[in-house]
Amino acid sequence: MAKGLPTRKDDYSAWYNELVKQADLAEHSAVRGCMIIKPYGFAIWEKMQRILDDKFKETGHSNAYFPLFVPKSLFEAEEKNAEGFAKECAIVTHYRLKNDPNKEGKLMVDPEAKLEEELIVRPTSEAVIWNTYKGWIQSYRDLPLLINQWANVVRWEMRTRLFLRTSEFLWQEGHTAHATKQEAIDETEQMVKVYADFAENHMALPVVQGLKTESERFAGAEETYCIEALMQDGKALQAGTSHFLGQNFAKAFDVKFAAKDNKLDYVWGTSWGVSTRLMGALIMAHSDDEGLVLPPKLAPIQVVIVPIYKKEEDLEQIKTALAPLTKVLKAANISLKLDDRDSFRPGFKFAEWELKGVPVRLAIGMRDVENGTIEVARRDTKEKMSWQLEGAGENIKQLLEDIQQNIYDKALTFRTSNTTEVNTWEEFEKALDAGGFVSAHWDGTAETEEQIQDKTKATIRCVPLNNPQENGTCILTGKPSKERVLFARAY
Amino acid sequence: MAKGLPTRKDDYSAWYNELVKQADLAEHSAVRGCMIIKPYGFAIWEKMQRILDDKFKETGHSNAYFPLFVPKSLFEAEEKNAEGFAKECAIVTHYRLKNDPNKEGKLMVDPEAKLEEELIVRPTSEAVIWNTYKGWIQSYRDLPLLINQWANVVRWEMRTRLFLRTSEFLWQEGHTAHATKQEAIDETEQMVKVYADFAENHMALPVVQGLKTESERFAGAEETYCIEALMQDGKALQAGTSHFLGQNFAKAFDVKFAAKDNKLDYVWGTSWGVSTRLMGALIMAHSDDEGLVLPPKLAPIQVVIVPIYKKEEDLEQIKTALAPLTKVLKAANISLKLDDRDSFRPGFKFAEWELKGVPVRLAIGMRDVENGTIEVARRDTKEKMSWQLEGAGENIKQLLEDIQQNIYDKALTFRTSNTTEVNTWEEFEKALDAGGFVSAHWDGTAETEEQIQDKTKATIRCVPLNNPQENGTCILTGKPSKERVLFARAY
Repeated sequence: MAKGLPTRKDDYSAWYNELVKQADLAEHSAVRGCMIIKPYGFAIWEKMQRILDDKFKETGHSNAYFPLFVPKSLFEAEEKNAEGFAKECAIVTHYRLKNDPNKEGKLMVDPEAKLEEELIVRPTSEAVIWNTYKGWIQSYRDLPLLINQWANVVRWEMRTRLFLRTSEFLWQEGHTAHATKQEAIDETEQMVKVYADFAENHMALPVVQGLKTESERFAGAEETYCIEALMQDGKALQAGTSHFLGQNFAKAFDVKFAAKDNKLDYVWGTSWGVSTRLMGALIMAHSDDEGLVLPPKLAPIQVVIVPIYKKEEDLEQIKTALAPLTKVLKAANISLKLDDRDSFRPGFKFAEWELKGVPVRLAIGMRDVENGTIEVARRDTKEKMSWQLEGAGENIKQLLEDIQQNIYDKALTFRTSNTTEVNTWEEFEKALDAGGFVSAHWDGTAETEEQIQDKTKATIRCVPLNNPQENGTCILTGKPSKERVLFARAY
Repeated sequence: MAKGLPTRKDDYSAWYNELVKQADLAEHSAVRGCMIIKPYGFAIWEKMQRILDDKFKETGHSNAYFPLFVPKSLFEAEEKNAEGFAKECAIVTHYRLKNDPNKEGKLMVDPEAKLEEELIVRPTSEAVIWNTYKGWIQSYRDLPLLINQWANVVRWEMRTRLFLRTSEFLWQEGHTAHATKQEAIDETEQMVKVYADFAENHMALPVVQGLKTESERFAGAEETYCIEALMQDGKALQAGTSHFLGQNFAKAFDVKFAAKDNKLDYVWGTSWGVSTRLMGALIMAHSDDEGLVLPPKLAPIQVVIVPIYKKEEDLEQIKTALAPLTKVLKAANISLKLDDRDSFRPGFKFAEWELKGVPVRLAIGMRDVENGTIEVARRDTKEKMSWQLEGAGENIKQLLEDIQQNIYDKALTFRTSNTTEVNTWEEFEKALDAGGFVSAHWDGTAETEEQIQDKTKATIRCVPLNNPQENGTCILTGKPSKERVLFARAY
């Protein structure tokens, strides 16, 4: 970490890449586009998983596990979905290696071990899951079926970036089946709200909830809800999606149920997911030129204590002085690290924990012990304070809450001041170049949407939920429009 | 579940297969050899994961995530390991589908999207992880490196059985690196003890800890420790392994560290894992002809309450009477289900929860409400009792502990009475046919081991740890031997 980061202003993209590596979050692997999530990065992901998993269970969902591989014929069954993912599928064609007769000690694919039918490595699991639901659903008594899976998926991406776009990534995918259209829509909306709540209250990340336009919808869905966040470089990032699938997959896989009146009908479906992409959003939304800034609720280490001492017996005295404080913090389930490594100097440790985004750093030397004080540094504002050791535990608990709130408030202020309403094409282009969300009228056609993207690289991020209705004219074509939509350049 | 199970005596194998399906634990998928783990089965696996993960963290390990794919050249680097897994590898050769010109609406593998180098779907992750460790380890300060991963792996099996042997399975794999040989051996031994503790104290499954013979060792290991359990049909099951890798992978991937004296040396490695195979062991060790028997510590539902009533207002009275009891049980974190489905009769519900192995079933009708009593049925012994409602909460807590202990004791008694010491070939064959572990002298050669297997289908399960030394003669060759080893037919 002594290397220093590029600044966000100089090169936002290099800043992000270096930060991910230097803070020990992730790195590239020997396989093109696949990442290695390092222990410190994975600890953050585990916290995200635990919180989300609890929320899914509170809303009635159970976890299950479905196969990694999808036979090609199953994959094809829902045509739009298959078309949407076909170009990025990793495909298993053989199941055995053998000794290479031409190269001593080397192996080759055994041509005799060709599979009768190729297997797709799942890019998403609708096909394999709906094919299974056919066997699980006979009557209204089997509904709703509310299932989630934590899994790895593969989408063969040509241009990859750690966490944001990788060929293999980790995610959860919910797949539910319902007796009525309304119930499925309610579920879709419930889950986008669960995601928004998680983003705002745990990731400290304000998000816009909205609907995707038809061209941005999930392949095979009738409606895609999303949460959209704004990064510090003014680009938007889709942080989660929840899809109303209508009866599309039920029809493709023949999943019918007998209602109370014994009439047979296709069930209604939803699917919803968030992925390790959230890690990218978390990093880019809050961090600064010195390193990560982690919201306390997701920080693997919430408080680090750096003792400052020369003699071994001083360290013992410091530990004794700290004992009442650490007891209070541990009792409050605050994750605490005492960094007493003797091979590094305090300044080095300060920089390391700053880089790694630990929300609160405590430092304590012999003079503090004498005075009954402790130095408290908060990561978000870089403020340093000298506190009385007595009662510090309660104050630190409060400080962690304040930091969580402050990180959110800062991101919200940033988003508010980077969301611009425009009414003309000239204003639109100018606002896009300045960065952020641009709220504008659009004539509602896919052609106009595409033309705008070709001219500006901006896409419609969403039509916000509960969007105010307002008469206006399309910024490109001048045709009439009844509501504004949110444009942005995006990750 | 109305269908009834085959009995263990009539057809143990059919009993197991049907039980897994009827108890909603798992089922076969559309992909040969890959299973679907259903919500009830997955809930048990999640409990196992949580307990094991806590134990790994208590012993200093962190979780991380490494790629699903291994480039063929990396896979080959440790030759013994590569040879050991080559014949069962799923191989990705292409990364895109395209529209099939010969079949409308169908997709085909795009021949132009051939990968330059084939990718192996990980059968185990030593190769990809040791290739990464090369970048993570420079000096003794980076050691020990203690990492675990929860992941799916693929071994293309020709004959599969749900949980016991599937082409894709879920597991955890620990991979550690150490500065000294002794430290790596200590780690290997520590982890086999962690597994034994989990098996005995949570799965209620007595296990023998031991060492594998050379021919049964993990490909690429210098020593394989294992835990071996005995199933009710007298066959053994390997439930977990912990490998001392020596410097094999460090040499294959050139992973060196500078010691305190600045000398460079290869690091010492271990790897260890348990998988969804444990689910198979759990089911086969304890269950009976009526269904699953789950130890309370792993049961997703520990207590089920079946109210017996005719009128809706009776149900309300029953719920009121139950309120103090449910409060006590919830406060003790006991997972509780009130089965008030009105579409099924009590007898049907009793049979369902019996099939699903819920440790304690409570039933309560209007007469019980009047008398202040409740019917208590334990799954393991099928004993039924009428208890006073008052104080039932504390008694149920104790009962769950008793059941946990009783299931363990029963399995231990079974193992003890099915472990036979033999001294002649005749006794050996007879004991194998009777089933169970057979403790016998063996001359220590791989040839004899193979001959015994060819003649009897029995393998050496392990050389138990702390094995008493005793002079004897090999049951097959009559050559001298210094200790007995454990033979059995095995899963």
